Amino acid sequence: MKQVYATIITIGDELLIGQVIDTNSAWIARQLNQCGIAVKKRVAVGDSYHDIVHELDAQSGGAEIILLTGGLGPTDDDITKKVLCDYFGGKLVINKAALAHVKYLFEKVFKRTVSEVNLKQAEVPDVCEVIQNKRGSAPGMIFRKNGVIYISMPGVPYEMKGMVTDSVIPLLINSFTLPFIVHKYMLTAGIGESALAEVIHDFETSLPAEIKLAYLPNYGMVRLRLSTTVLPGESEMKIENKFAELKGLVREYLVSDNDDTMPELIGKILKDKKETISTAESCTGGYIAHLLTSVPGSSAYYQGSVISYSNELKHDLLGVSKNTLESFGAVSEETVIKMLHGLLNQTNSTYGIATSGIMGPEGGTPDKPVGTVWIAAGNNTRHATQKLHLRFSRERNIEVASMMALNFLLKFILENGT
Amino acid sequence: MKQVYATIITIGDELLIGQVIDTNSAWIARQLNQCGIAVKKRVAVGDSYHDIVHELDAQSGGAEIILLTGGLGPTDDDITKKVLCDYFGGKLVINKAALAHVKYLFEKVFKRTVSEVNLKQAEVPDVCEVIQNKRGSAPGMIFRKNGVIYISMPGVPYEMKGMVTDSVIPLLINSFTLPFIVHKYMLTAGIGESALAEVIHDFETSLPAEIKLAYLPNYGMVRLRLSTTVLPGESEMKIENKFAELKGLVREYLVSDNDDTMPELIGKILKDKKETISTAESCTGGYIAHLLTSVPGSSAYYQGSVISYSNELKHDLLGVSKNTLESFGAVSEETVIKMLHGLLNQTNSTYGIATSGIMGPEGGTPDKPVGTVWIAAGNNTRHATQKLHLRFSRERNIEVASMMALNFLLKFILENGT
Repeated sequence: MKQVYATIITIGDELLIGQVIDTNSAWIARQLNQCGIAVKKRVAVGDSYHDIVHELDAQSGGAEIILLTGGLGPTDDDITKKVLCDYFGGKLVINKAALAHVKYLFEKVFKRTVSEVNLKQAEVPDVCEVIQNKRGSAPGMIFRKNGVIYISMPGVPYEMKGMVTDSVIPLLINSFTLPFIVHKYMLTAGIGESALAEVIHDFETSLPAEIKLAYLPNYGMVRLRLSTTVLPGESEMKIENKFAELKGLVREYLVSDNDDTMPELIGKILKDKKETISTAESCTGGYIAHLLTSVPGSSAYYQGSVISYSNELKHDLLGVSKNTLESFGAVSEETVIKMLHGLLNQTNSTYGIATSGIMGPEGGTPDKPVGTVWIAAGNNTRHATQKLHLRFSRERNIEVASMMALNFLLKFILENGT
Repeated sequence: MKQVYATIITIGDELLIGQVIDTNSAWIARQLNQCGIAVKKRVAVGDSYHDIVHELDAQSGGAEIILLTGGLGPTDDDITKKVLCDYFGGKLVINKAALAHVKYLFEKVFKRTVSEVNLKQAEVPDVCEVIQNKRGSAPGMIFRKNGVIYISMPGVPYEMKGMVTDSVIPLLINSFTLPFIVHKYMLTAGIGESALAEVIHDFETSLPAEIKLAYLPNYGMVRLRLSTTVLPGESEMKIENKFAELKGLVREYLVSDNDDTMPELIGKILKDKKETISTAESCTGGYIAHLLTSVPGSSAYYQGSVISYSNELKHDLLGVSKNTLESFGAVSEETVIKMLHGLLNQTNSTYGIATSGIMGPEGGTPDKPVGTVWIAAGNNTRHATQKLHLRFSRERNIEVASMMALNFLLKFILENGT
């Protein structure tokens, strides 16, 4: 059985001027991967007739599946449907099911008058099969040519995702004999990428060609990934054995042997122990709370947070004394310790994290330049502190400080937990 | 003068299995756009010798500038340098400046022993010009062939960004005669994309070919963009006039006539009025606070927040009575109003936002299904509430509820502000 390849083409001028970050392709790639289809390449082109045609031509021979998203909106700047209609030699006709759906959407769901422009959404090339869009008005389209299957979907993430899950993946699984791609992850801490590479050098060079190793550095930790392709009926023993061997080699640095994110990992540990967490954030401005609450079911262990951006709220809500704030400043070890204990008093959580720092671009001083961050993690009896010197953009400083704070908390829980 | 085109090639298996969202290309595209270079296409390929070579071949003729990121790490899975060395017919040699820099980084900045693997970072093809990487150990590389300039950069966003700003953009500005691309944005609210398209239909069809209009729907609002290319010395009057005309046509729905994000727009208004804001978040879990504090200088008007995920904290920190919570439930109009007033009492902010809802995937009931969200926005004398029925993933529900809450607050400020 040979590997089946897909190419993802995203269409839209907004992707080329950098206004929109393409999250669709990454999501589609994950879905394809999970059912054994490898992505050969991802391409983004503008709403340009010539460029879309050029890309369709360029793909032939490279992949058996071409997925397109974007350019199906009702307005004149969207031309994907017209290009595909011409490319596959069809003409536009009204699709009855799509028309009924557009009318239903506007009358029953949006409760708005349906316009001429909206009704044109139900026009499709007469040489395609239509995929119903349960979540919006633009239908999906399937074309076939020279053994390649082309599927065009809307660019709106919510609509595209519904279509992929409900229709595209089942169709692809039926159309191809697919292998199964296995990824195994582990997370290490306390060792840099290069030092880790030296520790596992012999292991890496001895890996069989069909098992790939990747290093994925991540906020002061390094994630390792082993990947392989397993045919139907074939055993996963080979990669399992190699994974066990790798775990043994890095056991000293091992934090987790799966692909949980840091907030998921912390959540699992707290849930198991029936313990709770809350945060007292100044410079991270709620981002740690956001990371923790992004995990489904986090209400089982996450209680809440006090985001004390101003000194007044550090005093009023967390009880940091004016004396501490004046003597040491808001960005100091003393202040984050007081914030942490004020938080634990207020919330009765088992663990807390407190942060205070200067994220930039303004607000730095010679003593405390932009990027200075103090973190405290602790419980009612013990705490630990860490000072960071970040040197990124404001946005990135917030992300990195938040991830470092979660890493620091995890370390605290592992070392001080009951 | 002809338009100069660039293609962005990002390299890394992690991009094709969907593990990493490619934020680099969007950022690079914005920088290129600002200095008049149009992006023809963005491509992501894996760490595969054949695929990288294929992509390099495929680009010739299409663009004068090829920017590559990724695959320059010290570990064996990174092969970009080797591919480029072979492709441009060079051999790897130690670059003295790069070697000195790697040693300096490890000895003075990272304070770690420099390893063999790290020192290999200083090897570069003898047919390239080296770009110093001030923020990391992998140098950038410039190759030239048949009038096309190829620039290879690390994939680590922080390192890549420093290199683009300090070296790549100045080099490109010196190498080409560049036009200037002008984008003008406005934000509308209270009208859907198709209805808006009908309002401005005549305007749109009358636009000269060199001015492009785009509709960018965004959380219940629609952003409009006019774009054109201006040659050096040429006036921007034509697009300015069209922009003024468009503003007139949509004046009833106009929220902003620039490209400020919603948090920036709210920040500007509050700063002007010397007013302040704080948030009381349950279901949004700190994400509204994060959006507000992502804006540089937000400490001038953002005071802080109470993230009251548990009912205990809604009571203890915001003073929502147990009676209210029991009679109406945590997800109710009554509760968000009480949260809002508790917040304004605690923080003395001019305005507040409160949210409570069920983000899923678990936790819904027949009465209050997943996606039910109550929002309250107000000041000390007035408040307004809104109920949402969201139907996305947890992650997306949090984002949409947060953006809708900021939109709702903006509306409140515009209608009730002093």
